[in-house]
Amino acid sequence: MERVFNFNPGPATLPLEVLMEVQSELLDFHGSGMSVMEISHRSKDFEAIIGEAESSMKELIGGADDYRVLFLGGGASTQFAAVPLNLVPAGREADYILTGSFAEKAYEEAAKLVKANIAANTKADRHNRIPKAAELQLSANPVYVHLCSNNTICGTQWQSFPELKGIPLVADMSSDIFSRGFDIQKFSLIYAGAQKNLGPSGVTLVIIRKELLEQVNKNIPTMLRYDIHAKNDSMYNTPPCFSIYIVNLILRWLKNNGGLPAMEKRNREKAALIYDAIDGSGGFYKGHALLEDRSLMNVTYRLPSEDLEKAFVAEAKQQALIGLNGHRSVGGIRASIYNAMTLEGCKALAEFMKEFQSKNG
Amino acid sequence: MERVFNFNPGPATLPLEVLMEVQSELLDFHGSGMSVMEISHRSKDFEAIIGEAESSMKELIGGADDYRVLFLGGGASTQFAAVPLNLVPAGREADYILTGSFAEKAYEEAAKLVKANIAANTKADRHNRIPKAAELQLSANPVYVHLCSNNTICGTQWQSFPELKGIPLVADMSSDIFSRGFDIQKFSLIYAGAQKNLGPSGVTLVIIRKELLEQVNKNIPTMLRYDIHAKNDSMYNTPPCFSIYIVNLILRWLKNNGGLPAMEKRNREKAALIYDAIDGSGGFYKGHALLEDRSLMNVTYRLPSEDLEKAFVAEAKQQALIGLNGHRSVGGIRASIYNAMTLEGCKALAEFMKEFQSKNG
Repeated sequence: MERVFNFNPGPATLPLEVLMEVQSELLDFHGSGMSVMEISHRSKDFEAIIGEAESSMKELIGGADDYRVLFLGGGASTQFAAVPLNLVPAGREADYILTGSFAEKAYEEAAKLVKANIAANTKADRHNRIPKAAELQLSANPVYVHLCSNNTICGTQWQSFPELKGIPLVADMSSDIFSRGFDIQKFSLIYAGAQKNLGPSGVTLVIIRKELLEQVNKNIPTMLRYDIHAKNDSMYNTPPCFSIYIVNLILRWLKNNGGLPAMEKRNREKAALIYDAIDGSGGFYKGHALLEDRSLMNVTYRLPSEDLEKAFVAEAKQQALIGLNGHRSVGGIRASIYNAMTLEGCKALAEFMKEFQSKNG
Repeated sequence: MERVFNFNPGPATLPLEVLMEVQSELLDFHGSGMSVMEISHRSKDFEAIIGEAESSMKELIGGADDYRVLFLGGGASTQFAAVPLNLVPAGREADYILTGSFAEKAYEEAAKLVKANIAANTKADRHNRIPKAAELQLSANPVYVHLCSNNTICGTQWQSFPELKGIPLVADMSSDIFSRGFDIQKFSLIYAGAQKNLGPSGVTLVIIRKELLEQVNKNIPTMLRYDIHAKNDSMYNTPPCFSIYIVNLILRWLKNNGGLPAMEKRNREKAALIYDAIDGSGGFYKGHALLEDRSLMNVTYRLPSEDLEKAFVAEAKQQALIGLNGHRSVGGIRASIYNAMTLEGCKALAEFMKEFQSKNG
């Protein structure tokens, strides 16, 4: 078997060590004589998994004692509805900052279900930047302000989060969760689909401030209710057990590799390799995002022509550099370099970029 | 490694051949150099998986050309809300037949969200039976009648489905889907969580008549909308890819093993082994369900005392017969013998039952 360097935007590359562990115990989980896929979600074995995952998360973040961690099915797109339905009471509204496609989707869903206000929108700049604090036009008394911490498609990322004078902040962190340290106390709720930095698709992480659980709306579909999931420790129904099992192994891997500070350091090194190749290309490669808003997770850039971009993706693939085509809505090149992408993979890509330029530049 | 006989009610035992295939290609899916968990849901490889799964389903059922097959996240509990929210227009109502805990949950969720009527309820008989056609008290003009085809907790199963003179039938088939042949044309919509007969938890199958897709309500959360999922071939968002991959392998396994007729024959043989041990015990084992309503999937019975039941479960476990305790709400013994449980496993359980009786009877 020859593993490729997988720059897919999600589902994405996973740590080889974790996959090997999964493989080795796939037919017999810890001597149970069953696959982890075959054990009851109400068994001690599975309770240990989900319990360890919750405590690992809190350990990685630090200081999250007043939060609950939930593992839900349905994808982050389900949270686009769940957040406003749970949190916005009748007569109130929520503010959304639109920095990319998924932030837009979150807003559109909220606007369909409750009253929602656009506090800022970078669409006129093709979402190549993050708005400044001074740009935010908040409504009179928003229930929360929603942002997307990293924009997968355009390759921008909030470098620091806005100070909102007590207005609760809600973040979709699907594409950069646990890629760097962050202060959970700034947030009332964060959510993240697992399939970029946390594991396979099929499970969504929600971290919610405990006090919010007492205020959520109750006249909504039961499976969208945070209070129900919290009360049942994410086991109101049968959860996506196998995905949670892998998330737990990934969290263990994060802890064993130095936690969020070490991960952030490595992610900065990785991203720098590729951004340096862009910036040192004399304009052959053009980054999409403004310098100060560049994402550490998704590096987006263009080549001089679409033909060259096609050739770039095709030749990269021949060198086992996979998944480099940009999102179908924007084109160009996108290298997704989540936690599990190795420094070696980023070096290989940067080398390839230089070679490709020397042949075609 | 020594595999046990796993009688868990769900997540449940899976075919060993399938697990071995999953294990063998876990690090490298079909020469891609990536795990199937790491490939894009928009890749040709994954499209082939989900496409094969849909066509295998239609092949197994037969004559389902006017239906769409959807693979959704969120569990069957999400469908408890999605069904009424999609299908019941303002001013109309839906009828529910209450034959057990999950049928009750489906009704309670519907009653919370739309108008719902109880057409029959077997609770007074501790859900030990399926109602007769003459018992059904339908409302004047129901949008649909909902039933649960197999009741996991109490061990009853519809042997044939009611004739409703054109009223659409909706069924939760979570615990007996593809365990026997059935006429899809009788149903407007069926749904099933995968974790009993189809694969690991984390994905729910929905089979819906195409013409219904044009009539569904649109002012509901997007992720609950059947028309959106159908239009996007179950990829409106990132689906639970790994669970779908295993479902596809299970469907292939079903086809390679003779399809639904062969599965039904084997399931009847398997269930007969255990029911014969009950019926031949002279009253030591007492079945919960009425004879004519017995489930082929979940065999539920009591012993003369709770102490004996505890001893039974404990001694069975020592003989590698796992997961035999009844649901916490009803107690007793429950042997879940879904498609993937072998005849050998059922023989071992029947033998054990006889031994246990001879020692304790």
